[in-house]
Amino acid sequence: MAIKLYDLVAAEENRAFSPFCWRSRMALAHKNLEVEIVPWRMTEKEAIAFSNQGKVPVIVDGNKGEKVVCDSWNIAKYLEETYPDKPSLFGSAEAQAETMFINAWDGNVLGVLLPIIIYDVFENLDPKDKAYFRESRESSVGKSLEEFKDVTEEQINNFRTFLDPLRNTISQQPFLAGETPNYADYIVFSTLQFARTISPKQLLETTDPVYAWREKMLDLFDSLARQNLAFNK
Amino acid sequence: MAIKLYDLVAAEENRAFSPFCWRSRMALAHKNLEVEIVPWRMTEKEAIAFSNQGKVPVIVDGNKGEKVVCDSWNIAKYLEETYPDKPSLFGSAEAQAETMFINAWDGNVLGVLLPIIIYDVFENLDPKDKAYFRESRESSVGKSLEEFKDVTEEQINNFRTFLDPLRNTISQQPFLAGETPNYADYIVFSTLQFARTISPKQLLETTDPVYAWREKMLDLFDSLARQNLAFNK
Repeated sequence: MAIKLYDLVAAEENRAFSPFCWRSRMALAHKNLEVEIVPWRMTEKEAIAFSNQGKVPVIVDGNKGEKVVCDSWNIAKYLEETYPDKPSLFGSAEAQAETMFINAWDGNVLGVLLPIIIYDVFENLDPKDKAYFRESRESSVGKSLEEFKDVTEEQINNFRTFLDPLRNTISQQPFLAGETPNYADYIVFSTLQFARTISPKQLLETTDPVYAWREKMLDLFDSLARQNLAFNK
Repeated sequence: MAIKLYDLVAAEENRAFSPFCWRSRMALAHKNLEVEIVPWRMTEKEAIAFSNQGKVPVIVDGNKGEKVVCDSWNIAKYLEETYPDKPSLFGSAEAQAETMFINAWDGNVLGVLLPIIIYDVFENLDPKDKAYFRESRESSVGKSLEEFKDVTEEQINNFRTFLDPLRNTISQQPFLAGETPNYADYIVFSTLQFARTISPKQLLETTDPVYAWREKMLDLFDSLARQNLAFNK
């Protein structure tokens, strides 16, 4: 039986862009589990009403009596506990605990990234999601989306600098998790996958070690993340 | 046999303040190894000339034919490999790899912290180290130490905000490494121990979860880090 994943997409069904859904997609692939992707748009609240909340990722595990799990971190923990014989997402209890730190740091990366690409998100959204996105985001940030249209070189440089701990680490070892990637890598990769999917801006220089690491992540699982529509900058 | 640790101290011999030496002290305590602390000042280059470089921490392992190891990360790896039957500093290969990321992030924390407390460092140094410290630091930052005397509220708030990923993580679990502390915790703690040892500034609010976590770290190993002279702000 497959595990259903409700996955946020843009105007095109194969432009999945949510950094949180990408974490779950990579985690499911790592666990080598059969997946059925359900493309989903922000305004399709009724389609996930069964989960008693309004955000994706949501998974429905057909192997376990249609068990419903929301939130990327909860999904990762659920998969790790439910499928212990499949490749581990963390490697150890200590590594899982430290991955929570990486998850929190990645939240800050997203905080720096979002103002840079939020207008690109808006432009690429499915038309039926645009009004909802504008209203919910403008009320949460207290500015019009148009105010995010002009992005400065300084913002982009600041984003690049913010990635220094990642850059430093993957300059010394192949992946955040060491010799092979695990959920720690998927977290940060998913944020970069969000950017390359939805924004035409050149956020990473091609000579950046982070760019080379992202390339390796794109190759994983038969180029799973590369098959998604993307500007690939 | 004991392991000798050359440990940077201020004017007082029991005001050890190097964030890198503290990592090694906590690591040695975690491994439950017998330690002989050798208080050391910055200008005592000849005392560590045997290590073929001029910085501490340096350890000399009396159990292993006076083996010399420099650099806190190398020391942690050395202790982990050499004493595998003692409590692990990392927990797993994945956790060790991710601890490298935390180490890199902590480097950025130090970058935010240093301008705030560098003048306090200068004031508390042993008199014989002051000229060396001034010259080496002023030439590396291109400013006089006096320019760091006035610290703004904004700098301190920025430092506190910078700790968000730590704050977020230890609000959800007791330690960075989960239920019990390991080298990941010692890295970040050592940076805060540096601050509380050398600076009278109130860098953490006492209501901050990071403050409570730091208290727990100070309690470890019979209050090892609490026995050091400190302003404890």
